[in-house]
Amino acid sequence: MNHSRQGKSGAPRARPAGGPASSRDGPGARPGPHQPVWLYGRHAVAAALANPARRIRRVAATKNARDWLEKNGADANALARLEDARPDAIDRLLHAGAVHQGLAAQVDELPRARLKDACAPAEPGRPVVILDQITDPQNIGALFRSAAAFGARAVIVQDRKTPPLSGALAKAAAGAVETIPCVRVVNIARAMEGLQGLGYFCAGLAGEAQDDITALPAAPLALVMGAEGAGLRQLVGETCDGLFRIPIEPGMESLNVSNAAAISLYEARRAR
Amino acid sequence: MNHSRQGKSGAPRARPAGGPASSRDGPGARPGPHQPVWLYGRHAVAAALANPARRIRRVAATKNARDWLEKNGADANALARLEDARPDAIDRLLHAGAVHQGLAAQVDELPRARLKDACAPAEPGRPVVILDQITDPQNIGALFRSAAAFGARAVIVQDRKTPPLSGALAKAAAGAVETIPCVRVVNIARAMEGLQGLGYFCAGLAGEAQDDITALPAAPLALVMGAEGAGLRQLVGETCDGLFRIPIEPGMESLNVSNAAAISLYEARRAR
Repeated sequence: MNHSRQGKSGAPRARPAGGPASSRDGPGARPGPHQPVWLYGRHAVAAALANPARRIRRVAATKNARDWLEKNGADANALARLEDARPDAIDRLLHAGAVHQGLAAQVDELPRARLKDACAPAEPGRPVVILDQITDPQNIGALFRSAAAFGARAVIVQDRKTPPLSGALAKAAAGAVETIPCVRVVNIARAMEGLQGLGYFCAGLAGEAQDDITALPAAPLALVMGAEGAGLRQLVGETCDGLFRIPIEPGMESLNVSNAAAISLYEARRAR
Repeated sequence: MNHSRQGKSGAPRARPAGGPASSRDGPGARPGPHQPVWLYGRHAVAAALANPARRIRRVAATKNARDWLEKNGADANALARLEDARPDAIDRLLHAGAVHQGLAAQVDELPRARLKDACAPAEPGRPVVILDQITDPQNIGALFRSAAAFGARAVIVQDRKTPPLSGALAKAAAGAVETIPCVRVVNIARAMEGLQGLGYFCAGLAGEAQDDITALPAAPLALVMGAEGAGLRQLVGETCDGLFRIPIEPGMESLNVSNAAAISLYEARRAR
């Protein structure tokens, strides 16, 4: 990856105190809130260009990608910012193997969303999704996409364990990281208590639960998803108002976590 | 990737006529039915070791992975076959970046399943999943996992467009490629006609459909999934007995295809 540390103004940007030296895409290298990250893929970049809250530093686009953006409603401002590039030049901007579809943007991370701003007042039919120790970028991205598709209010993640919403994650989200607020918290159980205070029912997904998800209550829901295999951590499980399972074949261990979240979001909406 | 062309007997294996020279994992290099491929990841390899129909050529395992297999019910035969290996030695057996969790197996592809053997007689509650032009290995793998979790009968794919059921695909399937028959066909629409002859109702998933998936009939179902964006090809859509949509927010283009399949499989089971 090759990115400039210069802002659009050309002035060198100060690095936030204690911030990491790199904006590489991956959980090992969290950029600070205003460090640049790379987005790539057509839907991910198109959504960023359409998001007024997103500060864009540069956008490289192939001829085909520019045509696609034009056909898909990008405005004149966005089109004016595109730097013409060949696919191999875009390859060199990104990590090896990034499937960029001819489009890559260097952007600042979005301003951080706060729990109350993003989630209050609670509304039935607009669930919040909470991720407990889910780290796989593809899964988190697909989960944002499903959250957007089913009208979720926000996604809450543990700051320390969650990769930046960029790269492969943002590509899998297909633009949803621009529209669904992501609240990064220090402590998941405490965030759940905050949501309970706002009137949310915290429903944990757990294979060993007695009730299945058709028993989800009609209250505003916070759907709490644990990591595959490990499941919810003990304190997180104990903080839930109820535990629910997805009815699958006996003997099958679990579903992919983004698939489990999609089913839960679907069921929460269907039953309303 | 580094693999031997010798069978367990030590005798050189003849390459099938016209077969590719490489067994690399990827859509560009389809191995023939008896070419070796690599599986990696704990669940993928454990399931292969437990599958009597799977011919295993070699298995490399770290100490930790061997302990995990022992704790997770691998039999003495399987354990006796493990070659001790360090993680970096396993890295060198696989493509760069393969997340192998200390376990990799070189195996023959499974014998090919035939449509009638895998799908007859039709039973309500045991759907078949048909993939029309879905090529992403992670999505196909996650889809196999959900198919297994919801008791699907088989997965039907277009032979020419579908990568081998190995590598990242098999890892995402978490063992389900060992348990769900995969029928590779030349022509998807013709396979659908075959299923209709067996009593299946072919339900195509399509964002533009009038009916939503809560209207899926109680008949034995073949769920037909198209590629994200492109959707079902025209002839495939016309061959469906009905088209159904997943109710998502207006303006949202689509779900990830494995998430859409998981929701459809869940709904088909729930409504029964």
